[in-house]
Amino acid sequence: MNRPLRYWMRVKMKISVVKNILEANQRIAEENRRKFEESGLMVINLMSSPGAGKTTLLEKTIHLLKDQHKVGVVEGDIQSTYDAERISRTGAPVVQINTGGACHLDSNMVQEALKDLDIQDLDLLFIENVGNLVCPAEFHLGENFKAMILSVAEGDDKPLKYPMMFQESRILLINKMDLLPFCDCDVNLMEERARKINPSLQIFRVSCRTGEGLENWIAWLRDEIKKRGRS
Amino acid sequence: MNRPLRYWMRVKMKISVVKNILEANQRIAEENRRKFEESGLMVINLMSSPGAGKTTLLEKTIHLLKDQHKVGVVEGDIQSTYDAERISRTGAPVVQINTGGACHLDSNMVQEALKDLDIQDLDLLFIENVGNLVCPAEFHLGENFKAMILSVAEGDDKPLKYPMMFQESRILLINKMDLLPFCDCDVNLMEERARKINPSLQIFRVSCRTGEGLENWIAWLRDEIKKRGRS
Repeated sequence: MNRPLRYWMRVKMKISVVKNILEANQRIAEENRRKFEESGLMVINLMSSPGAGKTTLLEKTIHLLKDQHKVGVVEGDIQSTYDAERISRTGAPVVQINTGGACHLDSNMVQEALKDLDIQDLDLLFIENVGNLVCPAEFHLGENFKAMILSVAEGDDKPLKYPMMFQESRILLINKMDLLPFCDCDVNLMEERARKINPSLQIFRVSCRTGEGLENWIAWLRDEIKKRGRS
Repeated sequence: MNRPLRYWMRVKMKISVVKNILEANQRIAEENRRKFEESGLMVINLMSSPGAGKTTLLEKTIHLLKDQHKVGVVEGDIQSTYDAERISRTGAPVVQINTGGACHLDSNMVQEALKDLDIQDLDLLFIENVGNLVCPAEFHLGENFKAMILSVAEGDDKPLKYPMMFQESRILLINKMDLLPFCDCDVNLMEERARKINPSLQIFRVSCRTGEGLENWIAWLRDEIKKRGRS
């Protein structure tokens, strides 16, 4: 492409700034990770498209674990406190981050939020990211696991089109299984495409609305919490 | 917040770069707009979350208009040519943009894509943006209208949490109305929340799967194409 020098300078500057931002993010993510490790806390960065069911999954998960484990939530949204209010009604401690327009959480936002949360008191911390199947995948927050939710209503082609999120995630929750009879979605094909990108993905088929399949997810969480000496 | 000077320099640099990028984008968007105007072409920038139904809407729309109007598509995806192949099977001319990781289209990508499309031959051009309810709203492409799709499966709280997309759009297509009986979504509340952000939103309730409600959308398109002297 034939472009003026100013164009390429801008591109170069942009790349350099992006690199700086990601490096700074990584550094603070490491600080967060050390802090989590010291307290034996398990931390999950929960990501998905808007409306795939992140907050509903958290409500159900907190309810199913609460007799045995203390769960906290860092709630990320561009604006509004709607989801944090939902989580708050479960009785779990929650801190809201409003990104003020930004399309993902970064490690610095999480570090700030941790000041308002007594993590010594928790067994499990969820960080609910901004609803976005693209940008959050690039920013480590210091979590142990990245987990993503994909709703069957979104269709079985999503792994082909948004591969990075599938690459980065350790867990894939396929949600809204109750809608499957009414959607043109082949859930086996969806899984196959996801595993092709990331063969080590752990997959749970669930319906957060009906509770279907959540027992396997909860069993996995209990197991991972136990590994960290918090039985 | 008490932070080192380097932090603030980085923030300042980031803001300045973002401003440069948006200004450059706006300039090229104006060039695109003039080009579209000169040929009397109507252009719609179509945005939504992943899996809300953009490509299915385009397939149905092309089918319903094709006896009377020639429709073209610029297909934006992070990677893959899956959607462009779907559009191609309708017989409509289509050009694929792969953003290579970027979470939105910009006006420069569209300008490049237009080189491969005979717009003199078209009445209506759709630009299908990357599936993302956040970032695409910030980048004008030279379109006449921004249209967004929101699926009822995403829930009625989306206008509260992703307001910019609703502010920027002229059209809101509420899709997957066939799933409404099976979702915890109050579609009247969804509309009310959307109109509170943008009172001039034109709203169509549709099901691209069953075809329900598409006649109003098609009538609106025909009307707008006629206004541009292409009846």
